[in-house]
Amino acid sequence: MKQPERLRGIFTPNLVPLDADGDINESELRRYTDWLIDRGVHGLYPNGSTGEFTRFTQQERQRIIAIVTDQTAGRVPVLAGAAEANTRETIKACERYHEMGARAVAIVSPFYFKLSPAAVYAYFKEIADNSPIDVTLYNIPMFASPIDVPTVQRLADECPRVVAIKDSSGDLPHMMRMIAAVRPNRPEFSFLTGWDAALMPMLLIGCDGGTNATSGIVPEITRKLYDLTIEHRLDEARELQYKLLRLFDAMLFSADFPEGFRAALRLRGIETGVGRQPLSPDQQVDLHVVSDTLQCLLAEEGFMDEPLGGCPPKRDDDDPRQVDVIVRTVVAELKRRGLTMDEG
Amino acid sequence: MKQPERLRGIFTPNLVPLDADGDINESELRRYTDWLIDRGVHGLYPNGSTGEFTRFTQQERQRIIAIVTDQTAGRVPVLAGAAEANTRETIKACERYHEMGARAVAIVSPFYFKLSPAAVYAYFKEIADNSPIDVTLYNIPMFASPIDVPTVQRLADECPRVVAIKDSSGDLPHMMRMIAAVRPNRPEFSFLTGWDAALMPMLLIGCDGGTNATSGIVPEITRKLYDLTIEHRLDEARELQYKLLRLFDAMLFSADFPEGFRAALRLRGIETGVGRQPLSPDQQVDLHVVSDTLQCLLAEEGFMDEPLGGCPPKRDDDDPRQVDVIVRTVVAELKRRGLTMDEG
Amino acid sequence: MKQPERLRGIFTPNLVPLDADGDINESELRRYTDWLIDRGVHGLYPNGSTGEFTRFTQQERQRIIAIVTDQTAGRVPVLAGAAEANTRETIKACERYHEMGARAVAIVSPFYFKLSPAAVYAYFKEIADNSPIDVTLYNIPMFASPIDVPTVQRLADECPRVVAIKDSSGDLPHMMRMIAAVRPNRPEFSFLTGWDAALMPMLLIGCDGGTNATSGIVPEITRKLYDLTIEHRLDEARELQYKLLRLFDAMLFSADFPEGFRAALRLRGIETGVGRQPLSPDQQVDLHVVSDTLQCLLAEEGFMDEPLGGCPPKRDDDDPRQVDVIVRTVVAELKRRGLTMDEG
Amino acid sequence: MKQPERLRGIFTPNLVPLDADGDINESELRRYTDWLIDRGVHGLYPNGSTGEFTRFTQQERQRIIAIVTDQTAGRVPVLAGAAEANTRETIKACERYHEMGARAVAIVSPFYFKLSPAAVYAYFKEIADNSPIDVTLYNIPMFASPIDVPTVQRLADECPRVVAIKDSSGDLPHMMRMIAAVRPNRPEFSFLTGWDAALMPMLLIGCDGGTNATSGIVPEITRKLYDLTIEHRLDEARELQYKLLRLFDAMLFSADFPEGFRAALRLRGIETGVGRQPLSPDQQVDLHVVSDTLQCLLAEEGFMDEPLGGCPPKRDDDDPRQVDVIVRTVVAELKRRGLTMDEG
Repeated sequence: MKQPERLRGIFTPNLVPLDADGDINESELRRYTDWLIDRGVHGLYPNGSTGEFTRFTQQERQRIIAIVTDQTAGRVPVLAGAAEANTRETIKACERYHEMGARAVAIVSPFYFKLSPAAVYAYFKEIADNSPIDVTLYNIPMFASPIDVPTVQRLADECPRVVAIKDSSGDLPHMMRMIAAVRPNRPEFSFLTGWDAALMPMLLIGCDGGTNATSGIVPEITRKLYDLTIEHRLDEARELQYKLLRLFDAMLFSADFPEGFRAALRLRGIETGVGRQPLSPDQQVDLHVVSDTLQCLLAEEGFMDEPLGGCPPKRDDDDPRQVDVIVRTVVAELKRRGLTMDEG
Repeated sequence: MKQPERLRGIFTPNLVPLDADGDINESELRRYTDWLIDRGVHGLYPNGSTGEFTRFTQQERQRIIAIVTDQTAGRVPVLAGAAEANTRETIKACERYHEMGARAVAIVSPFYFKLSPAAVYAYFKEIADNSPIDVTLYNIPMFASPIDVPTVQRLADECPRVVAIKDSSGDLPHMMRMIAAVRPNRPEFSFLTGWDAALMPMLLIGCDGGTNATSGIVPEITRKLYDLTIEHRLDEARELQYKLLRLFDAMLFSADFPEGFRAALRLRGIETGVGRQPLSPDQQVDLHVVSDTLQCLLAEEGFMDEPLGGCPPKRDDDDPRQVDVIVRTVVAELKRRGLTMDEG
Repeated sequence: MKQPERLRGIFTPNLVPLDADGDINESELRRYTDWLIDRGVHGLYPNGSTGEFTRFTQQERQRIIAIVTDQTAGRVPVLAGAAEANTRETIKACERYHEMGARAVAIVSPFYFKLSPAAVYAYFKEIADNSPIDVTLYNIPMFASPIDVPTVQRLADECPRVVAIKDSSGDLPHMMRMIAAVRPNRPEFSFLTGWDAALMPMLLIGCDGGTNATSGIVPEITRKLYDLTIEHRLDEARELQYKLLRLFDAMLFSADFPEGFRAALRLRGIETGVGRQPLSPDQQVDLHVVSDTLQCLLAEEGFMDEPLGGCPPKRDDDDPRQVDVIVRTVVAELKRRGLTMDEG
Repeated sequence: MKQPERLRGIFTPNLVPLDADGDINESELRRYTDWLIDRGVHGLYPNGSTGEFTRFTQQERQRIIAIVTDQTAGRVPVLAGAAEANTRETIKACERYHEMGARAVAIVSPFYFKLSPAAVYAYFKEIADNSPIDVTLYNIPMFASPIDVPTVQRLADECPRVVAIKDSSGDLPHMMRMIAAVRPNRPEFSFLTGWDAALMPMLLIGCDGGTNATSGIVPEITRKLYDLTIEHRLDEARELQYKLLRLFDAMLFSADFPEGFRAALRLRGIETGVGRQPLSPDQQVDLHVVSDTLQCLLAEEGFMDEPLGGCPPKRDDDDPRQVDVIVRTVVAELKRRGLTMDEG
């Protein structure tokens, strides 16, 4: 059997626009799909974490894939998030998304319960042995049971249906360990990073692409960063990676995920609607401040005008502290959530 | 409005027996419900973590509550796990379980995404303001977004529908901080511990009861421990708490949760069926060993005969190492899962 | 050989008063030693964490033990913190403190490097095999390599010199697992808790005493709590434990440890001097606020007058929020330090 | 004042050879110093973590710097680890190492106690304001209080003596955040990574060099990797980074740190002697196995012959599992130590 080519490039984990009743806004989701493809993303990834798959019902998750595959109409590959309550339901979802024309499914490791490596293996093995469509493992250890390197290797060795892993740990040596363990036996296996903050170095050490939330907001930047990096235009790529990091941090740490991304997407002209996770009054006020900060960052990159009240001076000229403000926010927020990334 | 009495006593988070096809085994679930009530548990708690609520579909979760409330028929109160994908679906579940005659619902804090305290507050506030039935908060920080003390206090102060918290952190001073923060304003508010290993001391510092997985397996012991403790028969209670700890550790750490509990329940004569999370071949072998260990522990307490191969000598007489074996297993397993409880 | 009795009661990990030059204030340390003994502590524990042993030089640590043993003059047993840079230096310290008349040494598990259980075992084994004085293991997993249950059991079984463990994890089931593992073979082995917030329940499940920082500030309360608990006067003990928890939280989480304890001790009339860890200007301001809060708590217990500006109304009467303020501080501080105890 | 140039290149955190009595083996330390300089390292870094500074006495730490600065005799810059028990002692060490001709000192963030950012700031500020020699901050959050980005920025802005940071977190976006925060105001500030596993990508996003334990064992490889990377010979660099990762993992995770490095250094002909942290009998057996594995890896790179028993087949040809074995060891070991780096 001829193996298909590796999954490559930027797959956008798209948000799902909602209408005034909190239901899926189909027409806006279709418009957003076109908007992303027009701006150069290599693929779409509905029902990812940014797409808040856990906040939709089983029926809604199916409808999201149906809309996105239909609207995409083969222009770019679709990676369909397919995790359901158990393996039986997940396999059924694999079958449906295969019929809908998805290129592959992505299945997050079991969450809520923290499973042992043996149980993570057994879970993916049962799905991979029964799926009619290629499977991407999805490792996001801050939210779900970790998929460790030996488990990835074992699944890659035993399951031809498993063709890729999306890893959102942001841990570069961990990515290298996976690549070293899997590539000798499975040269066509694909490694995608979900950690936008390290996209350039991840590509340089061997990743094939990314599933990056920022690409849903500023697809122009994420795509350009990908292109510059694989062309080894390192100085330009590095500069862009630093810009993307500022945007990523501002959207990720300014509010409960993915509210910062939703606020920024609204600024770009997509009618996202209000998210399903309620916000306290304080959070709603905070989100207005965040929105202005994001607008300034987007204005700096030429995507839009500054907000009415203007923006603080650019950091390189007058005030080196703008980044500081963001970073302090980041650090404070990280700590508040117990997600301090710089600790062991 | 006259406040109802505090929820008190042992509420059993029951497992759900499955048939050969992996579907809910209704007749066995009804038999198990009777079995538990006959052995003295004060209430039932279907769709808890032990009940693996995340591994059932929305429709199945409803059916579980329907069966348990129907079979219970008012003999004991039912605390119905009601968390769904979002607040709208969760509120609908509250309405249904109210109609079915549940005493209250229990709602786990949002999981997968790790939410800030403000978001946790907003989530429960929206549910509590729209629920026709009393709400128990469910804090299980190893699996879901933590509900911190100020959030518990704020919800208790603002939401008369919120009448209790089930806390599975096992952190005794944390429980005391919650009690100190809430009781002055809400004397009827109930505090339930989900950490069987500390049931006796939790009751002694002011808890009203527990939702304890062990009570689904050895309801006789858990109930007796509760009775001895509230009667302040401390020496007897302490001795029983140590026994319960051994059983709890053996069931909790011997296999991926709740497989150890399922294996033990089978030993007690309930046809649990095979769980929905697949097991690797190694795990299945391990489970046989675990089952023998559990049978020995249950035999020691007089619940059944020893396994065919016999049991190791009792620790107090000949061999002080039996606990050691369990403890080593515990510690190894804890570490393997990154759940080392004795670390900061 | 006749085994000595178990170490029992409250051992105070005393702070070390410093003079204006930052050197050990010997006369005040002697006065403080008397002050503690007069107020009923069962023993002293110099060179503990509260005594900031890491911030003194090797020579200073020896001098501290020399002063305390001399001043104590056999009135109460002294548990001498003896950890030095390596086993050779530590064994030398054991010899010196033995000559000085200490009852036993306490040796913290190796820190900075995080050691495996095998290495922790080897470390204590070498010391215990060469020490002329009884050894207390000191487990404080938030600061040092954890000593797991099998390691405690192995050391207890193999090393007659190891006679006790001080555990500051605050994890009650962990304490029970240790007791269950060690007591059958070593009935005279002593278990001391370093977590004041759980002193009463720890004593009730079998602990022999505590090494509690609060006993250095309010020895009257800690001693009374110990007495009430072992006399099984549960209602009085519980009420006092809640009071101690408020004081403990206020001192522990209000400032970088042990600054809150130092501020409170100053209020009690001991000239502590300024600590060796420098404070930022913001921290110094914060400490004044903390000091007023502590004075109010101490005034409430009758130890002193309210501060000049007065105190907020007592919580049980008018305002249930005073504890809330403390608790919010606690939670915020815990999170800031990444020490959230209620998370997995 | 003309600023000196940035610290650049590979600084070796050297182990300290011990003699049969466990004392510093001066002649072998001198020989090792020459051996490293001859193999191209850009600088030396005695009293680092690899040099086990915590396991020596204050007097020994001084002697180590005296020997290394004397033997180096200006051929390469020396970065002298100078952390002592408190700021007063640390400042004295700065003065001495300045007199001995060190280029700069490196000072680890306070450890044992976990300090708040404000306290970490105050600590370094006091030292930097009183040091006659340039100061490198040393951030190693798995062992010591983390130095967060705003604190690094504040110290860089306020303290001209602070000229560099060594960061061993291995977190690439964290390094980028520091660089973005500090460089605009302090273009000559140097950023060094202590995480060998990510040396190439760290250099590519703007780091100036590394303080890498592997450079003490295979200085040839670490130096070559540095050269290839700054010359942008990416394919060669990437291949070498993967090789270095295997060596790093094998030495780091095969035994309690730094025993794997000590075993490998012995293979390279340096008489390291036996370390000061005792090893259990099991650990000693394990170390023999590790030593053979390391010899095979070193033989593969042409540094020495295979061990007498031979080596397993090379992974790229016959057996893709050799890395797997190492990786499984890594993962198991990481988990055992609670240091799972791929988790949030």
